[in-house]
Amino acid sequence: MGEHYTRYLLSKDPSVEIVGADIKPLRTGPGGDTQAGKVTFYRGSFLDKKWVFDIIKRHKPDRVINLASYSSVAFSWENPSECFVNNTNIFLNIIDSVRELKSGAKVLSVGSSEEYGPVSEKDMPLEESMRTGPINPYAAARVAQENLSGVYAAGYGLDIVCTRSFNHVGPGQPDIFAVSSFARQVTEARLGLRDKITCGNLGIVRDFIDVRDVVKAYDLLLEKGKKGEIYNVCSGEGYRLSEVLEMLKRKAGVDAPVEKNAALVRPADNPVIVGSCRKLESATGFKRKYDLSRSLDDILAYWKNSLERASGISGKNK
Amino acid sequence: MGEHYTRYLLSKDPSVEIVGADIKPLRTGPGGDTQAGKVTFYRGSFLDKKWVFDIIKRHKPDRVINLASYSSVAFSWENPSECFVNNTNIFLNIIDSVRELKSGAKVLSVGSSEEYGPVSEKDMPLEESMRTGPINPYAAARVAQENLSGVYAAGYGLDIVCTRSFNHVGPGQPDIFAVSSFARQVTEARLGLRDKITCGNLGIVRDFIDVRDVVKAYDLLLEKGKKGEIYNVCSGEGYRLSEVLEMLKRKAGVDAPVEKNAALVRPADNPVIVGSCRKLESATGFKRKYDLSRSLDDILAYWKNSLERASGISGKNK
Repeated sequence: MGEHYTRYLLSKDPSVEIVGADIKPLRTGPGGDTQAGKVTFYRGSFLDKKWVFDIIKRHKPDRVINLASYSSVAFSWENPSECFVNNTNIFLNIIDSVRELKSGAKVLSVGSSEEYGPVSEKDMPLEESMRTGPINPYAAARVAQENLSGVYAAGYGLDIVCTRSFNHVGPGQPDIFAVSSFARQVTEARLGLRDKITCGNLGIVRDFIDVRDVVKAYDLLLEKGKKGEIYNVCSGEGYRLSEVLEMLKRKAGVDAPVEKNAALVRPADNPVIVGSCRKLESATGFKRKYDLSRSLDDILAYWKNSLERASGISGKNK
Repeated sequence: MGEHYTRYLLSKDPSVEIVGADIKPLRTGPGGDTQAGKVTFYRGSFLDKKWVFDIIKRHKPDRVINLASYSSVAFSWENPSECFVNNTNIFLNIIDSVRELKSGAKVLSVGSSEEYGPVSEKDMPLEESMRTGPINPYAAARVAQENLSGVYAAGYGLDIVCTRSFNHVGPGQPDIFAVSSFARQVTEARLGLRDKITCGNLGIVRDFIDVRDVVKAYDLLLEKGKKGEIYNVCSGEGYRLSEVLEMLKRKAGVDAPVEKNAALVRPADNPVIVGSCRKLESATGFKRKYDLSRSLDDILAYWKNSLERASGISGKNK
């Protein structure tokens, strides 16, 4: 996300001042090279309030976006307390610094469709006015963050805009996520590196949005989103995972058999999650650029490129 | 709360084993003497997970009740981050220790009517199925605690029962709370120590429940409350603050004038908050023992006693 966001901001205005901060070092080299030299970077822990406070005090940002959080539901079940404490306390350290400094920065609070909890097909598409019902530690942290945003916006006048972001796809996404994993496996099959595709529950329907469109939506919300409001960031379209896999196989010309692995099936998952993006569109004029087919093309190209590079296969020899 | 709870448990079963823990030392002497010698007490910080974990590991409690939290809305506005982090992280350290130890302890999560947020008169009495809408840092922390309780109950099988507790009254309550402040002032007027009563907004209606009934409700919920369920702990009756003040003046035979102090009026307060206690009653058979009139008698007696003691006035000479 940070890498795509940096690239987006620089393409819009090469003179933009970007300050990045993370507990991990800034990525450089292939994939990360757009950032090096163009970002003022601080390495440290967002759980250290003074460190966060000092960065905001020094740079007086116009806009702040927090992408520092554990974002895996599975991880949150393994480490519930760590996930909740990190995600909420990091966010609090940021907005509390903005409050204390009266910095006037506009803040984007990134939430998740997981906040809606168990929903039924008749509730689709999900709208922001629906009540939340978190059923995992990750979702509980996102709801807490959203509630704190509301309190800081209404109670202290902070200019905070909240999202409920749906499933991301895009080139560069780790293959712990289903679509990226499918694309990698399909590409491996095409390169003769595997003869079958392993998957979880292919029956579920999700709303996928390309990370590059997410970045655009976030930037628009930081420009035009209303203080204290919540916006779904989604495509508004549902695809069954089986369809996504078929699209990938067709695009790659692969016909490998598909095998279900029970370990990849989540307990009690929602059968269908599709969001309404009307509020986002009418508030910001957002139109997405990447439909799912185009995203899948780019994801396949990403895996082809990185697998060929890793295995020493030259694209020209294929 | 802890003092009343200890007294209640000991009166029910003098052989009960009570383990207390707090960052402040155990109160002894008048008011606190019921605890000394009857409670195994640990002094330390609940933010220290290992300390919490070790106490639960050593004593293997059947029941755990967490009363360690900042409970003032006003304080939470002054110290939002401290209030949120303390209240949620303390609670997480407790339930996460119970989870890791597979201790099987039943846990009471104490929440608040503040979780309901802005409500209108037609929503009365408030029922547990209504959606929450926290509008201050304290309430946001209580909602987070409740959501975490739900996740730990459904996801890890912890036996957690949640309350949404309404306004407490009772002898011994500090006079930062309205009813205790009124009773103290009325008593001071009766003793000739003041000639007028100062108050905030007397027009609001609240649901008051005596701390001794709260203790009984909590004990019943720890016995009979259902895992993952939420219960209002309230009287089901609404009293306007002006009525409460009139009752106190009548009982004390005081006719001092009443003066409104704007600094005591909260911004944007709910005009009416009354809860439904049907769910609590049908689940546990709870019946309250102290109606408001009886509570006020005891609160007046408490203040008479402590003011006379403080000023050296003997009751016999009056």
